[in-house]
Amino acid sequence: MSRSFVPPERMLLGPGPSDIHPRVLAAMARPTLGHLDPAFVAMMDDLKELLRGAFRTRNAMTLPLSGPGSAGMEACVVNLVELGDEVIVCENGVFGGRLRENVERAGGVAIPVRDEWGRAVDPGKVEEALAAHPKAKAVAFVHAETSTGALSDARTLCEIARRRGCLTIVDTVTSLAGVPVEVDAWGIDATYSGSQKCLSCTPGLSPASFSDRALEVVRARKRKVQSWLLDLSLLAAYWDEGHKRTYHHTAPIHPLYGLHEALVLLEEEGLEASWARHRRHHLALRAGIEAMGLSLAVPENERLPELNVVRIPEGVDDAAVRKILLEEHAIEIGAGLGALAGKVWRVGLMGHSSRAHKVYRFLGALEASLACVGARIERGVAVEEARRALSE
Amino acid sequence: MSRSFVPPERMLLGPGPSDIHPRVLAAMARPTLGHLDPAFVAMMDDLKELLRGAFRTRNAMTLPLSGPGSAGMEACVVNLVELGDEVIVCENGVFGGRLRENVERAGGVAIPVRDEWGRAVDPGKVEEALAAHPKAKAVAFVHAETSTGALSDARTLCEIARRRGCLTIVDTVTSLAGVPVEVDAWGIDATYSGSQKCLSCTPGLSPASFSDRALEVVRARKRKVQSWLLDLSLLAAYWDEGHKRTYHHTAPIHPLYGLHEALVLLEEEGLEASWARHRRHHLALRAGIEAMGLSLAVPENERLPELNVVRIPEGVDDAAVRKILLEEHAIEIGAGLGALAGKVWRVGLMGHSSRAHKVYRFLGALEASLACVGARIERGVAVEEARRALSE
Repeated sequence: MSRSFVPPERMLLGPGPSDIHPRVLAAMARPTLGHLDPAFVAMMDDLKELLRGAFRTRNAMTLPLSGPGSAGMEACVVNLVELGDEVIVCENGVFGGRLRENVERAGGVAIPVRDEWGRAVDPGKVEEALAAHPKAKAVAFVHAETSTGALSDARTLCEIARRRGCLTIVDTVTSLAGVPVEVDAWGIDATYSGSQKCLSCTPGLSPASFSDRALEVVRARKRKVQSWLLDLSLLAAYWDEGHKRTYHHTAPIHPLYGLHEALVLLEEEGLEASWARHRRHHLALRAGIEAMGLSLAVPENERLPELNVVRIPEGVDDAAVRKILLEEHAIEIGAGLGALAGKVWRVGLMGHSSRAHKVYRFLGALEASLACVGARIERGVAVEEARRALSE
Repeated sequence: MSRSFVPPERMLLGPGPSDIHPRVLAAMARPTLGHLDPAFVAMMDDLKELLRGAFRTRNAMTLPLSGPGSAGMEACVVNLVELGDEVIVCENGVFGGRLRENVERAGGVAIPVRDEWGRAVDPGKVEEALAAHPKAKAVAFVHAETSTGALSDARTLCEIARRRGCLTIVDTVTSLAGVPVEVDAWGIDATYSGSQKCLSCTPGLSPASFSDRALEVVRARKRKVQSWLLDLSLLAAYWDEGHKRTYHHTAPIHPLYGLHEALVLLEEEGLEASWARHRRHHLALRAGIEAMGLSLAVPENERLPELNVVRIPEGVDDAAVRKILLEEHAIEIGAGLGALAGKVWRVGLMGHSSRAHKVYRFLGALEASLACVGARIERGVAVEEARRALSE
């Protein structure tokens, strides 16, 4: 018997990774090129241009970092934050906490602005924190909290920070391509995303973008960036067209093939069409969920369409339902994290997973799974209501 | 016209990435699983076991880090080195220099032990450095210098370090699976490799292994590891069988599929058979190179079989020859780096690129390319000599 690994087929409706389009899978199986090959370098340039389109930016320094979203987070922090720098860090979920942790490990002083898990960041509290800490260098927040499904008002938060002369570090891991992200229009200085959410590529790359203002701050640093791998000045020498393509590290060739193809798919669809598709299927899912008698946990105007956080009905065994969904229906959804563990399910409709037939299949499977564990729900109406929502 | 990227076909005989076996390419196109899926978790456990086989270790903490070899280097350094720690760093090429840079950025005090580029690390100098710095915490060196093709005596260097009670950090990026690497027998405390050299998977993963002694040092740290992403105690919670699979970051699913398949191929061949194959094709290449009247730059007993460093004949234009090889023969070889730029070519016969027919094809193409630029070489004998060497 072969020891080769052949994964079972799943439909991925968790908080990421999402299902990958067959064209992206095919791209990742193409023959290898060297990372300094002229053909590969041309692909890199095109990839940067496609990323600029997705981020809505003209930032020269827009590139996929060679690591997961957490590497992108660390890159933003360690390049912009120096010993003793004050950073306002908004915490309304797991990833805000991770940002704080990164600021502290970089020698910065994190000033936490806390909001309830499942709610957007409160701009008023950020105003107050900035007034109380006039020397703060940056404001860091998560646009779309993957741990809670809450979407914050990035435009307003960036405006507040900018008025105080602060840099902004914005986590767009789960928002990019799912809801509007306007790097230039909102004046974001540093942002990082992930390849495996609404872009539907393999996990392990972190698309990122840095404003010229951010790069000036990096150039004016007193000390070297603590991470050699994530040092933007060294990365620029390999990725920037203006430079002589100096070798830094060996780029992850096949994941980059995949990301390029995922971005080509996004361009073919159109960025705004992608936002609209995520919204449409969110509304369909909501209609089905509510028809069953369940409810969404995040207030309506703070909801992330690509990540739906469903309250687990009283008395229903969280793990048992997820197990039935996975083992019998081959569907993955996410558990609650941290404060929300056991209280919610996270249902992602991201990228290639945001399709009508996947919404219908999920609703049918959830209904069956809830019936299995004896939950009292409305039966036989969810798919119909979802379909009605889509036809509106 | 589609904007999709279809790479040209190349034969990769540079310093990495190497050609990837079709079974590994196919594995990377398999459907996505979630990083907490029981099927994926079982694959991870098997992958760790396969890696233990490749590294010849029983270290529990043996895992593929989610980043390129340089992330592995940084992980070893930032976990083991604290502010003010003295580390003996052997520098006989680019990657020794990178190690020193990492030690300094981690707040350590690097004590460089320098050897000529193209030569092995001199154990006598390491002895002297240790005698002069009795408080040194670790000795760090590169087993196989990718920039020069020199192989150092890791067994002896580890023995010297151990006798002084020092930890060892060993770069096995280009050595793993190409020449013997004996983590347990040599007493290596921390080692990192790359996925794209003799393992012939896509670049972007760094197989690494840590001894229990190294983990104790990490546990006894005074301050947190400066990198959140590379903090071993956090990584252990996701990768270690003993733990509850706590989410840390989203693992790079498809590259891990590829690495698993590459390690299955290695196991099918046998580790020692892989070492022997790399040696055999190195001898064949050498025979052909010498028959042409060219020579290898590294002394015979310090040569790395998987990376052959060929002296560029007097008067021959380095870049012109590499351009002909790439554009007309579709073969990539590597340029010299740093002190060796313009003086040597680096010809890798790594992993799936270490095959007899690739040696023959390269020798024929090199002969034709050198003829193009008017170099005076022996013609029409290289392939025959290589074949003779293989039949011995």
